[in-house]
Amino acid sequence: MSHPQFLVERLPNVGHVRLDGPEGRHAAAVQRLRCGQIVLLSDGMGAVASTIVVAVSRDTLDLEIREHWTVTAPDPRLTVVQGLAKGDRGELAVQMMTEAGVDEIVPWAASRSVVQWHGQRGRRSLDRWRATARESAKQSRRSWIPRVPEPVAATGALAERLRAVRRGRGAALVLHEEADQPLSTVDLPSAGEICLVVGPEGGIADPELESFAAAGASPVRLGQTVLRTSTAGIAALAVLSARLGRW
Amino acid sequence: MSHPQFLVERLPNVGHVRLDGPEGRHAAAVQRLRCGQIVLLSDGMGAVASTIVVAVSRDTLDLEIREHWTVTAPDPRLTVVQGLAKGDRGELAVQMMTEAGVDEIVPWAASRSVVQWHGQRGRRSLDRWRATARESAKQSRRSWIPRVPEPVAATGALAERLRAVRRGRGAALVLHEEADQPLSTVDLPSAGEICLVVGPEGGIADPELESFAAAGASPVRLGQTVLRTSTAGIAALAVLSARLGRW
Repeated sequence: MSHPQFLVERLPNVGHVRLDGPEGRHAAAVQRLRCGQIVLLSDGMGAVASTIVVAVSRDTLDLEIREHWTVTAPDPRLTVVQGLAKGDRGELAVQMMTEAGVDEIVPWAASRSVVQWHGQRGRRSLDRWRATARESAKQSRRSWIPRVPEPVAATGALAERLRAVRRGRGAALVLHEEADQPLSTVDLPSAGEICLVVGPEGGIADPELESFAAAGASPVRLGQTVLRTSTAGIAALAVLSARLGRW
Repeated sequence: MSHPQFLVERLPNVGHVRLDGPEGRHAAAVQRLRCGQIVLLSDGMGAVASTIVVAVSRDTLDLEIREHWTVTAPDPRLTVVQGLAKGDRGELAVQMMTEAGVDEIVPWAASRSVVQWHGQRGRRSLDRWRATARESAKQSRRSWIPRVPEPVAATGALAERLRAVRRGRGAALVLHEEADQPLSTVDLPSAGEICLVVGPEGGIADPELESFAAAGASPVRLGQTVLRTSTAGIAALAVLSARLGRW
């Protein structure tokens, strides 16, 4: 069995760390961790420590650091541009892609996205995606929390981003069911960024497709069947991770 | 845009078909299909027809068959033995694996499954998995509905099934986070059955692992991170489908 892992804001190299707040309560009251048990800590940015529980209260855990190491950021990086989806499908996608090892998820208010993120409600949705990425990184024992930047809405801005990936010799890929090129055989760079665009439920609109193609992005497909937007990203990441030797 | 697809019990080679019941209502009232539109029909067992809408009422659609073909069953077949999961995680797994093209999903009441399927409630759960597979096959425009047989509970019965897969020169694989062999490089047969066991939330118990190993099944892993039981199957199917050239 693997050891429980917690995220902390700052992770010293030596000495003691107190786990408090909701994490501490969960560790002490729900997971019932006890003195002598081994717990992993990570700052979500590559720093990891193996610690031992030295004291437990009702809602805190005192941990002594025994070993400390750094996990380097994966190269090439895997970025998914995820079209906003209805209901909890967006969060589900974030959760699964985080488990699969995605490095960055860019929320995309596509023209066919049924939901759009405006004002307070949009802010809360972004917060939920970020919290989901954090929680899922912890659950899956990742030492890097995927970045979830501000959403992009303008097609031009997204195209510009894809153009920058191409300029950096990365791969800019657009999942599309009518593409000829399978994702499983498309050329992949050995370093830099692989950026994959996943459309919303209604699909990617033609003007968007054209704009991305003009920016140098390649349309690719995943199989013959139709995948939901919340399934497409995790499926694509699995294929890419296997091809890159990450898995 | 691809055409809407519906499932029918029996699909004649020529002539007319009436779509009624919930499917007909959905087509007429929700999807608002109109005369002259093209609709695909499938019997969920490989028979497919392209039809044209010739009459619409409030809750039925009359379709004229124009073309008729058969999609052969994929070879090798992909079977997933899915540990029963909490809440709607089991149905979510069935939905996504069906989108990804799984051929059969065997519900498995593993020793660490928090839910167990007993009596009436178990029957309803099985019905829900079957309905989910059917609905998801339709949504993803598959011409084969994955089979969802009765659940297995006895470790010995499951081991016997894995042994039979091995005897037929298929691959019997058990997803396990401590396995050394990555799924992305394990030997795969070019025909027959590839059967993959996915444990429940609590993981596969040691006696189960030993029993499967004794039956000739190979432990394989997917990456370094921990995947939820509802994510593991779809991720594994994506890797297998890419490796087999299905995708």
